[in-house]
Amino acid sequence: MATEPSSGYDRDAVRAVLDRARAENRGALTAPEGKVLAEAYGIPVPGEALATSADEAVSLAVELGLPVVAKIVSPDILHKTEAGGVEVGLSSPQEVKAAYERIVGNARAYNPDAAIQGVQIQQMVGGGTEVIIGATTDPTFGKVVVFGLGGVLVEVLKDVAFRLAPVTREDALAQVGDTRAAEVLDGVRGGAAVDRERLADVLTRLSDLVTDFPEIAEADLNPVFASATGAVAADLRFVLDFTPPKAPARFTREEILGAMERIFKPRAIAIIGASNEAGKIGNSVIRNIVDGGYAGHVYPINPKADEVYGRTAYKSIADAPDGIDVAVFAIPAKFVAGALEEAGRKGVAGAVLIPSGFAETGEQELQDEVLAVARRHGVRLLGPNIYGYYYTPQSLSATFCTPYDVRGGTALTSQSGGIGMAILGYSRSTSTGVSAIVGVGNKADIDEDDLLTFFGQDDNTNAIAMHLEDLKDGRAFVEAAREVVPRKPVVVLKAGRTSAGARAAGSHTGALAGDDKVYDDILRQAGVVRAPGLNELLEFGRALPIMPAPTGENVVIITGAGGSGVLLSDAVVDNGMTLMEIPPDLDEAFRAFIPPFGAAGNPVDITGGEPPATYEKTIRLGLEDPRVHALILGYWHTIVTPPMVFAELVADVVTQARAAGIDKPIVASLSGDTEVEAASAHLFRHGVVAYPYTTEKPVQVLGAKYRWARAAGLL
Amino acid sequence: MATEPSSGYDRDAVRAVLDRARAENRGALTAPEGKVLAEAYGIPVPGEALATSADEAVSLAVELGLPVVAKIVSPDILHKTEAGGVEVGLSSPQEVKAAYERIVGNARAYNPDAAIQGVQIQQMVGGGTEVIIGATTDPTFGKVVVFGLGGVLVEVLKDVAFRLAPVTREDALAQVGDTRAAEVLDGVRGGAAVDRERLADVLTRLSDLVTDFPEIAEADLNPVFASATGAVAADLRFVLDFTPPKAPARFTREEILGAMERIFKPRAIAIIGASNEAGKIGNSVIRNIVDGGYAGHVYPINPKADEVYGRTAYKSIADAPDGIDVAVFAIPAKFVAGALEEAGRKGVAGAVLIPSGFAETGEQELQDEVLAVARRHGVRLLGPNIYGYYYTPQSLSATFCTPYDVRGGTALTSQSGGIGMAILGYSRSTSTGVSAIVGVGNKADIDEDDLLTFFGQDDNTNAIAMHLEDLKDGRAFVEAAREVVPRKPVVVLKAGRTSAGARAAGSHTGALAGDDKVYDDILRQAGVVRAPGLNELLEFGRALPIMPAPTGENVVIITGAGGSGVLLSDAVVDNGMTLMEIPPDLDEAFRAFIPPFGAAGNPVDITGGEPPATYEKTIRLGLEDPRVHALILGYWHTIVTPPMVFAELVADVVTQARAAGIDKPIVASLSGDTEVEAASAHLFRHGVVAYPYTTEKPVQVLGAKYRWARAAGLL
Repeated sequence: MATEPSSGYDRDAVRAVLDRARAENRGALTAPEGKVLAEAYGIPVPGEALATSADEAVSLAVELGLPVVAKIVSPDILHKTEAGGVEVGLSSPQEVKAAYERIVGNARAYNPDAAIQGVQIQQMVGGGTEVIIGATTDPTFGKVVVFGLGGVLVEVLKDVAFRLAPVTREDALAQVGDTRAAEVLDGVRGGAAVDRERLADVLTRLSDLVTDFPEIAEADLNPVFASATGAVAADLRFVLDFTPPKAPARFTREEILGAMERIFKPRAIAIIGASNEAGKIGNSVIRNIVDGGYAGHVYPINPKADEVYGRTAYKSIADAPDGIDVAVFAIPAKFVAGALEEAGRKGVAGAVLIPSGFAETGEQELQDEVLAVARRHGVRLLGPNIYGYYYTPQSLSATFCTPYDVRGGTALTSQSGGIGMAILGYSRSTSTGVSAIVGVGNKADIDEDDLLTFFGQDDNTNAIAMHLEDLKDGRAFVEAAREVVPRKPVVVLKAGRTSAGARAAGSHTGALAGDDKVYDDILRQAGVVRAPGLNELLEFGRALPIMPAPTGENVVIITGAGGSGVLLSDAVVDNGMTLMEIPPDLDEAFRAFIPPFGAAGNPVDITGGEPPATYEKTIRLGLEDPRVHALILGYWHTIVTPPMVFAELVADVVTQARAAGIDKPIVASLSGDTEVEAASAHLFRHGVVAYPYTTEKPVQVLGAKYRWARAAGLL
Repeated sequence: MATEPSSGYDRDAVRAVLDRARAENRGALTAPEGKVLAEAYGIPVPGEALATSADEAVSLAVELGLPVVAKIVSPDILHKTEAGGVEVGLSSPQEVKAAYERIVGNARAYNPDAAIQGVQIQQMVGGGTEVIIGATTDPTFGKVVVFGLGGVLVEVLKDVAFRLAPVTREDALAQVGDTRAAEVLDGVRGGAAVDRERLADVLTRLSDLVTDFPEIAEADLNPVFASATGAVAADLRFVLDFTPPKAPARFTREEILGAMERIFKPRAIAIIGASNEAGKIGNSVIRNIVDGGYAGHVYPINPKADEVYGRTAYKSIADAPDGIDVAVFAIPAKFVAGALEEAGRKGVAGAVLIPSGFAETGEQELQDEVLAVARRHGVRLLGPNIYGYYYTPQSLSATFCTPYDVRGGTALTSQSGGIGMAILGYSRSTSTGVSAIVGVGNKADIDEDDLLTFFGQDDNTNAIAMHLEDLKDGRAFVEAAREVVPRKPVVVLKAGRTSAGARAAGSHTGALAGDDKVYDDILRQAGVVRAPGLNELLEFGRALPIMPAPTGENVVIITGAGGSGVLLSDAVVDNGMTLMEIPPDLDEAFRAFIPPFGAAGNPVDITGGEPPATYEKTIRLGLEDPRVHALILGYWHTIVTPPMVFAELVADVVTQARAAGIDKPIVASLSGDTEVEAASAHLFRHGVVAYPYTTEKPVQVLGAKYRWARAAGLL
């Protein structure tokens, strides 16, 4: 390990350069200024100096050592090559002299008004491997650093990796290894391996620089020549922005939890706009809250009724009893601000804004006004433009949809109402155990990081699955995710991955969807499991909480169908897991249970015509051997071992193992006639994640559990 | 277009070189021999000549033009660089002379027994873009040519593309463009674009060479220096194999169809081993044939019974009436050969070998013996080691599983019995209309290309979906697929894609799974749609036949859920389709039907609270506008437009459009409570491919239809 880079930075030198640029109203630094920044932060650059005459250029070149590179220095010329302002490989005093004059002449011709400070004479570096190290300011995540293999790999294949700045040394090393062609760094075609520590060192130093000086909007070290002994930034480019966007509002963890506790476990709820008229949202909401079994007080607010759905109604929330934690709004958008004023005075913690007609229809001002009212009263807003929210531990269905009561460990959130309805339907259809379903809609206030903070410490929640189209504050989300992931899986479906999808998101919520590669790298860095699609979000949300965490990487397939074994093996590789190399003694033990023409090894192919006992013995063996960490079962429907017989025996073996303190993740793929559907459901109920007619889905879910377990540091 | 390369080849020159190598029992050619081959087939190589003394080397170098490269020439030294036998950049007579002596000295030291023929003096070529062009002999497909971008791109990223040899000029151009980094060829970092025609020319010439001379097992032109004006192969390597594997047996199309017609539409079936004992395979088979409704004659063969399942039994097939087309075998493996002898004499066309205990349990000899009997009698074998086969147009369920009777256009085949059961269960659960389900098992005889040939011309079949772990004769499969694809989609799930999967396949069937990249490129070249997993094989098989073919690339999303619109857009890109740029007049027309805050453009976001009429008008508009070629619908469950109302209105609009002669592919994603499941089924029954709780699946299926339509030349 090199020395800790943060020591010994010359911040004053950087400050001076930036202050001068700001005073001169410049948006970029000159090369010599860039060099000052690099040197102040210990980023290696080639030896160089500024020449203001051809003769000075010659003497500097001789001093630095020939060959040299000559580059125009002018605050008014950013694209030096385009201006004919760069010459390389100057290997004699004559060449240097001639180049100086050509460069200055070209620059004058290119931009007659340009202030020319001279020509920079630079040691010519090269050889080794070209890489790119940079930093930029992402609209979602703020400062991020980027690493890429230089040349064609970056330009054509976009082979780059992003990390949130500041990066630790460890992050930076992982980032370097994260590019697809990272193997190039280990030396190919006879080349020497690059010292990755040196690259990580440059990355951390640059990330510290842009973190310490937020006005550095972009930094480009391109190319950096990396070798076995060093990494030298041959060219530097810095873009400045002295008017950075305002940082999003932040609440402390205590503030968030204080509000969320009251919102998810309210003593009393007021329904503003509760109605007796069937078909109205205000009617659906009160029916669902009451019929859903919520045990707290329910106060309908309706100026024209004495009673709504059997409960005493109040003309205004001001007239209702005290102790109201949540006000659900089921009134038109234009009346929300006024009613919220009263709710704020009443001391509610949360306002659930079901109505649409705010930012999503262009009414951004109305939404801002409502938020201002909320902030004045310390009320947190959920929505607007949402279906509401569910929290099953409180039997709370504050929504215009239908109640949901299957309790379980999964908390789901969605930015879109349509996706919320899919969550509800899928959950009901599969009896998914849910702690919460929350619509966040326009996210005028409460967003994913608030919810993550709450669910992360909520004992009723074991896994969190979120659909989102953007993040208001990517950095706050990453911080919340990092805090939660060591305890619970966080699954994210990021819609708008593709440019077409992002454009659709733009027309939908006005959200600017960031570059997906930035999201992908940074969410992964935060330990988030990304769901590639809606179905996976739902499946992961359903399955992850019922599986125990694996304690090692040894996955074993036990299958009655050889054909399934092949497909399951493919899926294991596709999902980033590894088939255990079965040790000889364990192989021997498996072989004792299977026919001579069955195949031990991995998959363990017990063959198709076997009785229940063969499945039972081999599965028990896999569970009991401590070197095996996860099982994938492939079942083949036969008359000898019908589907439900298989399901029951597996459930029994697993239950017995758990009683003996053995709990490993098990997934199953069932091939057979339609009875395998009921068998799969039986297995799911007993903690075995099972699917009919697919070899991919069970393995994909196990892969998601593994991705989480690795991110959580459990492996 | 350049001139047709096949003209003007000097085959005699190649023949002479190869004959000499064969006579000398050599497995590789020397560089000068390689050059003879290249020149005989018009592959450009650098100027070069053989020097047998240092002085000769100098005069040749001066003649060819300095600088030159010098390389040892010895049939006993294959790895010249390793032997110190290569020097480059020799730019003076002195350097050439010294290099000659060093090279010969090094070669002697490296291998004192090596026969040294001299040193080759070669023009030094370089610059431009380095690419690799090669050919190899694939165990499945025979001769294939490979193209790759040189250097790191091939070595680290394996960025190569394969094609079956011989390639046409058009194939070769597509192959060059098929590499991920092909953009490099168009010039990056200021470089000039490469002439792709020149590369295609070298590819076709090399592919002709290896096709004309099958004993060339491998050829490597590496590097080839490609530029704007030419492509020169700087180094050549040829590996020979004078004992190529025996070509697989082939039947003519007429022979195949003659046999298959009798097998799928038999006048009479004999069941050898038919039994009255419940639980026995021979009992299940006769029950399924009879109960399934097969209308032909059924003759149980059983030496110990007078009658089986109500039909007169015969002691031997010889005793049964004539006109038997198919014999189903339900007897132990060891009795099969004998019974097949009798069936052969009886003139059956096909023997369906259900029993296991052949190659898959190591009994390859027994399997070979059975095949020999079949060949002697002109009987085609299905299996052994299979569940049997179904052909619904004949109400034929010749299997030990259960009958299946939902007729439709999909023919499914599987190499594995487990996968066959998944096909059966899935089909029954989803009411998939099926023409055939066929197990091929060990494929001792009938394989996928036989079935493809039959189903390709079978009027009862509209789409073919095949699970396979290997191809016995990849070339025959490609030929069959190319013939069928212009009329019907062919979907393939190739198991054993990954090395782990291939290893599992190895232990399962003894099949050698080829490199997946070879399979992938060549199946795509043949127009086959590859299913990434089992579930996709089943979904594609179910959905493709019910969708009409698109006639253009303009896809439009109409959605009630903005959130679904974003995810559907992502899926469109993921699946290689493009969202139509909606022309202003059409945009205007959509806008007339949707709320002012809805978003036209594409997706057309009609917003969530709209009545049935809004869905109806916008969908009708999309169907009726001839510029729109396919529709993707996103439904959001609301009280205003409940799921079944949506499903019925869509079915009605589609039915009306069909009556008016408009038939476009339409898929739908339904987000909502559980009623969306019945609504999706209703839509499917009316020719709209619809799924609940997923935005990915419907678009993936549409993407598969597009991939087929492009391959079929319909777009």
